[in-house]
Amino acid sequence: MTTVTPLDPAEAHRLAALALAEDLAGGTDVTTLATVPAGLTGTAEVVARADGVVAGLDVAAAVFAERLGSAGHVTTTARDGDRVRAGQVLLTVTGPTRELLTAERSALNLLTHLSGIATLTARWVDAVAGTGAVIRDTRKTLPGLRAAEKYAVRCGGGSNHRMGLRDQALIKDNHVLAAGGITAAMRAVRAAYPDVFCEVECDTLDQVEEAAREGAVLVLLDNMDVATTTAAVAIARRHGTRTEASGGLTLAVARAVAGTGVDYLAVGALTHSAPALDLGLDLHS
Amino acid sequence: MTTVTPLDPAEAHRLAALALAEDLAGGTDVTTLATVPAGLTGTAEVVARADGVVAGLDVAAAVFAERLGSAGHVTTTARDGDRVRAGQVLLTVTGPTRELLTAERSALNLLTHLSGIATLTARWVDAVAGTGAVIRDTRKTLPGLRAAEKYAVRCGGGSNHRMGLRDQALIKDNHVLAAGGITAAMRAVRAAYPDVFCEVECDTLDQVEEAAREGAVLVLLDNMDVATTTAAVAIARRHGTRTEASGGLTLAVARAVAGTGVDYLAVGALTHSAPALDLGLDLHS
Amino acid sequence: MTTVTPLDPAEAHRLAALALAEDLAGGTDVTTLATVPAGLTGTAEVVARADGVVAGLDVAAAVFAERLGSAGHVTTTARDGDRVRAGQVLLTVTGPTRELLTAERSALNLLTHLSGIATLTARWVDAVAGTGAVIRDTRKTLPGLRAAEKYAVRCGGGSNHRMGLRDQALIKDNHVLAAGGITAAMRAVRAAYPDVFCEVECDTLDQVEEAAREGAVLVLLDNMDVATTTAAVAIARRHGTRTEASGGLTLAVARAVAGTGVDYLAVGALTHSAPALDLGLDLHS
Amino acid sequence: MTTVTPLDPAEAHRLAALALAEDLAGGTDVTTLATVPAGLTGTAEVVARADGVVAGLDVAAAVFAERLGSAGHVTTTARDGDRVRAGQVLLTVTGPTRELLTAERSALNLLTHLSGIATLTARWVDAVAGTGAVIRDTRKTLPGLRAAEKYAVRCGGGSNHRMGLRDQALIKDNHVLAAGGITAAMRAVRAAYPDVFCEVECDTLDQVEEAAREGAVLVLLDNMDVATTTAAVAIARRHGTRTEASGGLTLAVARAVAGTGVDYLAVGALTHSAPALDLGLDLHS
Amino acid sequence: MTTVTPLDPAEAHRLAALALAEDLAGGTDVTTLATVPAGLTGTAEVVARADGVVAGLDVAAAVFAERLGSAGHVTTTARDGDRVRAGQVLLTVTGPTRELLTAERSALNLLTHLSGIATLTARWVDAVAGTGAVIRDTRKTLPGLRAAEKYAVRCGGGSNHRMGLRDQALIKDNHVLAAGGITAAMRAVRAAYPDVFCEVECDTLDQVEEAAREGAVLVLLDNMDVATTTAAVAIARRHGTRTEASGGLTLAVARAVAGTGVDYLAVGALTHSAPALDLGLDLHS
Amino acid sequence: MTTVTPLDPAEAHRLAALALAEDLAGGTDVTTLATVPAGLTGTAEVVARADGVVAGLDVAAAVFAERLGSAGHVTTTARDGDRVRAGQVLLTVTGPTRELLTAERSALNLLTHLSGIATLTARWVDAVAGTGAVIRDTRKTLPGLRAAEKYAVRCGGGSNHRMGLRDQALIKDNHVLAAGGITAAMRAVRAAYPDVFCEVECDTLDQVEEAAREGAVLVLLDNMDVATTTAAVAIARRHGTRTEASGGLTLAVARAVAGTGVDYLAVGALTHSAPALDLGLDLHS
Repeated sequence: MTTVTPLDPAEAHRLAALALAEDLAGGTDVTTLATVPAGLTGTAEVVARADGVVAGLDVAAAVFAERLGSAGHVTTTARDGDRVRAGQVLLTVTGPTRELLTAERSALNLLTHLSGIATLTARWVDAVAGTGAVIRDTRKTLPGLRAAEKYAVRCGGGSNHRMGLRDQALIKDNHVLAAGGITAAMRAVRAAYPDVFCEVECDTLDQVEEAAREGAVLVLLDNMDVATTTAAVAIARRHGTRTEASGGLTLAVARAVAGTGVDYLAVGALTHSAPALDLGLDLHS
Repeated sequence: MTTVTPLDPAEAHRLAALALAEDLAGGTDVTTLATVPAGLTGTAEVVARADGVVAGLDVAAAVFAERLGSAGHVTTTARDGDRVRAGQVLLTVTGPTRELLTAERSALNLLTHLSGIATLTARWVDAVAGTGAVIRDTRKTLPGLRAAEKYAVRCGGGSNHRMGLRDQALIKDNHVLAAGGITAAMRAVRAAYPDVFCEVECDTLDQVEEAAREGAVLVLLDNMDVATTTAAVAIARRHGTRTEASGGLTLAVARAVAGTGVDYLAVGALTHSAPALDLGLDLHS
Repeated sequence: MTTVTPLDPAEAHRLAALALAEDLAGGTDVTTLATVPAGLTGTAEVVARADGVVAGLDVAAAVFAERLGSAGHVTTTARDGDRVRAGQVLLTVTGPTRELLTAERSALNLLTHLSGIATLTARWVDAVAGTGAVIRDTRKTLPGLRAAEKYAVRCGGGSNHRMGLRDQALIKDNHVLAAGGITAAMRAVRAAYPDVFCEVECDTLDQVEEAAREGAVLVLLDNMDVATTTAAVAIARRHGTRTEASGGLTLAVARAVAGTGVDYLAVGALTHSAPALDLGLDLHS
Repeated sequence: MTTVTPLDPAEAHRLAALALAEDLAGGTDVTTLATVPAGLTGTAEVVARADGVVAGLDVAAAVFAERLGSAGHVTTTARDGDRVRAGQVLLTVTGPTRELLTAERSALNLLTHLSGIATLTARWVDAVAGTGAVIRDTRKTLPGLRAAEKYAVRCGGGSNHRMGLRDQALIKDNHVLAAGGITAAMRAVRAAYPDVFCEVECDTLDQVEEAAREGAVLVLLDNMDVATTTAAVAIARRHGTRTEASGGLTLAVARAVAGTGVDYLAVGALTHSAPALDLGLDLHS
Repeated sequence: MTTVTPLDPAEAHRLAALALAEDLAGGTDVTTLATVPAGLTGTAEVVARADGVVAGLDVAAAVFAERLGSAGHVTTTARDGDRVRAGQVLLTVTGPTRELLTAERSALNLLTHLSGIATLTARWVDAVAGTGAVIRDTRKTLPGLRAAEKYAVRCGGGSNHRMGLRDQALIKDNHVLAAGGITAAMRAVRAAYPDVFCEVECDTLDQVEEAAREGAVLVLLDNMDVATTTAAVAIARRHGTRTEASGGLTLAVARAVAGTGVDYLAVGALTHSAPALDLGLDLHS
Repeated sequence: MTTVTPLDPAEAHRLAALALAEDLAGGTDVTTLATVPAGLTGTAEVVARADGVVAGLDVAAAVFAERLGSAGHVTTTARDGDRVRAGQVLLTVTGPTRELLTAERSALNLLTHLSGIATLTARWVDAVAGTGAVIRDTRKTLPGLRAAEKYAVRCGGGSNHRMGLRDQALIKDNHVLAAGGITAAMRAVRAAYPDVFCEVECDTLDQVEEAAREGAVLVLLDNMDVATTTAAVAIARRHGTRTEASGGLTLAVARAVAGTGVDYLAVGALTHSAPALDLGLDLHS
């Protein structure tokens, strides 16, 4: 069984605190304070309202923990990465009803978003099942949410491209232009950062050939059709170079692209266009 | 001409700084530093690659301003809320090429997300055009992004529901249960916060009747079909109560629901499930 | 029994940490470190030195908790909102003497200030007892202290006006000028923010008439004498409009103003000019 | 002419930003945005509505600068420490009317509070004029405001006691008890911090004698009546020890206490109980 | 036995959190996550690899506590200020192996740096043993580390000069020039801050004479050779003025300088040039 | 000419603000405020007092810019990485004398520390000149200073190892134990993070052989003597594997180690034990 690299607990708590603080904005939950007695306690269940892959249960739990403190008790009945069915209970939390209601939206906003990413990722993973191709994300994430969104991709069975600009080099067309060619750009990166992994974006088969000859470990095939991709993979393989398809990919063509033998499909939509997974909170007093 | 209430400039700068800091993570853009000479300058254009409604140009400009400082110059050639066409140039920025490339992804991530929300909102607004119904968002936003996401809804022609738990009361089913009925809940809110606007969620026509009799200014009709919604609107109108449809709304049924005479359609999907609008950055040296 | 809407515990802890950090300024309590042995423990009692209404016990407790951690134990023997007598013990804390002494001033500064506000508020509340008028605060608070100061007003039996500029509209003279009249201003607010509560400041009886005709729910009667206030209340009542007296109010005239039938008295002095309530800390080893 | 030690400009800007952020709470000034056109500009004057001593003009200017940025222009027509008359214009600011109105309350809250402190201080300073006694503040300040409040005391002609626990030692009764006597406490402080100024609180003439014999530079005479204070001063002078009266001081007795020859009067009320100075903002379009 | 004034626990935790956050930079420990199973636990020992004086054990413990939370258990087997031998175990921590490895470098970086300062300080203290001279640090510390570095000096047997610019006055040559002479500068400081300790830097014997006559409590003898220092001490003693040698001091001359009778040796190198003490972490599973 | 990858300007400003804030600790420079008139301006020169390599001029300039704002003007007359001689002027700043003196220590503390690192690095670089070996730093840096300290290493002609735990994998002995051998550990990292650069620490020649056979790109030779290092390099070269010597390296043996043909020497002392470079500030009024 594959285990997903976890999200740092400190990051879960940071997001939980941020969500609650933004929702309260230095004020109070006026509805709840007015209508719910201070002493009332209850149990809330987070329930899937659609089938999907769940991600972010620890983040949701952190929201409740942040708000309820030692007065609350959270139990998870699913694990991030699980395929869940509509109606399934994912998380149960007991504590003061006031705090449960105040925390509800913050917890759900994070959980539905991250589960939406995991669910979309899983659809792509399913689409290329058996081809050996790996689904990868991009840096097309929202400010403050990158670590969590990339974690959700892992929960869906995808893999992560670099976390940020410092981690790895990705030579794109503008870098090639500035450096005076693919070879020059690759050499410049190697000279400046010999131990930094370097991927090279290629727009043509000639560029693939040039990058592969120069020893590229991985090339990004940008906006190539299936036939060109097939040719590019052939060139790359002759030099032991891995390949990643990127640009204009849709679920409809995913399997065809994966069938060309590319190692990765880079899918920005995983993080920038995943609809939320429908989840709700049921409260029992 | 309607003018959209602007996003606070401080918020645009906060998001810009956050996005850049997360992408750099205390390090540097290794690719750009290695391949692009320090003295090189260029001009980058942000171009629409699909039709849509743009939102977030000031935020994108703030990203470039944050990174380029006085060495850069930004011009916008569209305005937030404009319906733009594929190929249209939205923003031009001139400055050191290194900084342009480092800032590119942060600027685009924000702009494509907010424009995606504006574009989806505009589709809902178009769908109900002529009915008098107003499209509204919810609190289903992402942590740290609420003000910007709700601004994007305004750019798309929608209206904002409350910004957070402190601003207005929204009595939901659990509040009704805790308070001992709709009337009791409404009176509790009015007693505690006489000047706070109070909306009441109703699941049945009886509840609509009860809330309206008690003087509700606005009721949220939760998960009612078109026929029931029509009946609910009739009841509400007899008491001068406004109505907001919520729950299970889709673009396909939007016009039918709007046709019932409801004042608002509450659409969580505007912020939690809007796909990004396709935009790119072209660099000219 | 009326219960006061509590202060958010997170806010109490924020203020506690802020006060301690400012007093220590990155250094240490040189007197205490030099003179008090590390192992010494003691019990400190916070005692009222004057009659008054107490507010901020949880904030004071948070100061001790912040500094003493698990080595300390705090018990409160009064509750916020209680009328206390000189000599009464309000809070007892046991723990390392060093930390008790270091925390003393931070705890007392907050508690005496908030209790001062509650005590002054209670004097105003007593002054209008039986008239039906409610004493309200304003936004005339100190930076960083608004939530706590408005909580203290509630402890004194007062009510809160809006927490900030985002929560409610209050159309003042300059807004009226800019919008082109009271009616225009009211319509502009209603168009932009239909669900936001809107109060209208009126300087003359004509303005009261205009605002009430336009459907104002609440008008602020600015700097009117008792006779004019009486007339304004009469006009407002004919339209079902509530009234709030404001400007130049003193305790001496409070009852006369309340006797005009106004719903609220807006008293800036509650927060901007309340003297501290005299409280001290007695230490027993 | 004596010049007042200024407030650090960074502190003025911190307070300005804090006040605005709290008032907006991540939202917007709904009234102003709805009623005031974006293009309108105006001039606002801050005007004294009562006689007093002004403090905080730079802080108020920082509020307008923070909100208006380069679109605004601020001129001050008084200086901190000036005795001003009702009707006198203190500060003029020109810029977008929207921003002027949004910033008004934040600027006034700070300026009226600090001027209130300066005004009360000046009354104490006047009361002891000619006696040679100096009016001093205490650490009885509000969290986050100590530097500004102590600056206001200086504007009123007072002097500052220590800024915080790290700066100077003040041996109080509990330190004496823990150390085993005044002499032991003084020696402990001198051993641990030979260069830290050390003041000693004395409750009796015997304690004054003991502290003075041990070489105390300054003793705090706590809660002594005028006759006892006179005796204490005599003892202290024989050893070249300075004296500071503290506890139960009121304006009514200030001159009598100062007449005993004490060097300082420690007045907590300067910062914990000063009523705000009445100031207003007049807007001209 | 002398006890060292402790470092504030909050400062230890701040440094611990800062070190970990910088090392992880919003990402994860990729090596450890990939190679170490989640369930594995172990015991790590921090061991001295050279003789020296230890400082920072609580800071190192805070690093482990921050990362391991309640899953870890830390025991210290030495105390700050102890002279330790190579091979000696200083701290033992048990918990999840993953977290132990992730925290290792952050803990060691702080502990080796602070112990390096303590060890160098102890060498200076040893060098002047028996002369009565005290070794003192300066403000030549690194940003964010001053409190901890000065604590390490105390652990090594040294004493602290002022913590920052607010605590004490130190009149240097440029202040003398600006004020118009040593006497004028001293009087200016005394007038503005009568209770602030004031030291005066002197470059010549005439300046020592002038400062001492004016009542200086302590003079800093800047860059004087041993003979001149001896003469300066003689002059100062006639006026009861203490002396501190500063400038160009090395361990080789420390004893000779101390032999002149100066009260303090000010040694910037304690904090700006101390090599790290060699310490390592041994892990047992 | 090689250009050093610059330090991010935002990081320079962060450090500058941090240093000033810590030195002032919310208070003021009492000496300077008392002795230096407000209107006095002057020119300060930062001068080398010893030969060395300079690093941190932009950071020092940021300190002056932070404190003087638009009232100051900074000129640098050397560049980071320059070999400078005692007596050489490096930076000139003109502005209000008060602010120059308040900023002096913060600027010098940063500049002397970073220049100390650059100078020590240059000594190592000189020691191995002509051998082809590259001097590299480690993660043995101080909290909050890593980016700046690693920048200083670059200024001295050295190269940077990874910035933090997220950037690259470095399999050490404990990872090998946990994973069940070098091969298992390498495969685990490659499976989890295929694009992350992975270095492997080897303690024996057998481990070098195993790592190289498994395709290691770079091995860290830990604590090997020169003869063993020579043998390890030979083994590694047969597999095209690069080598980095680490552990117990001193300047005395640097050239001998470099002569073995290793690609890198990892030198923790560059950052954890570099003495400050002697620099001073001369003020002219």
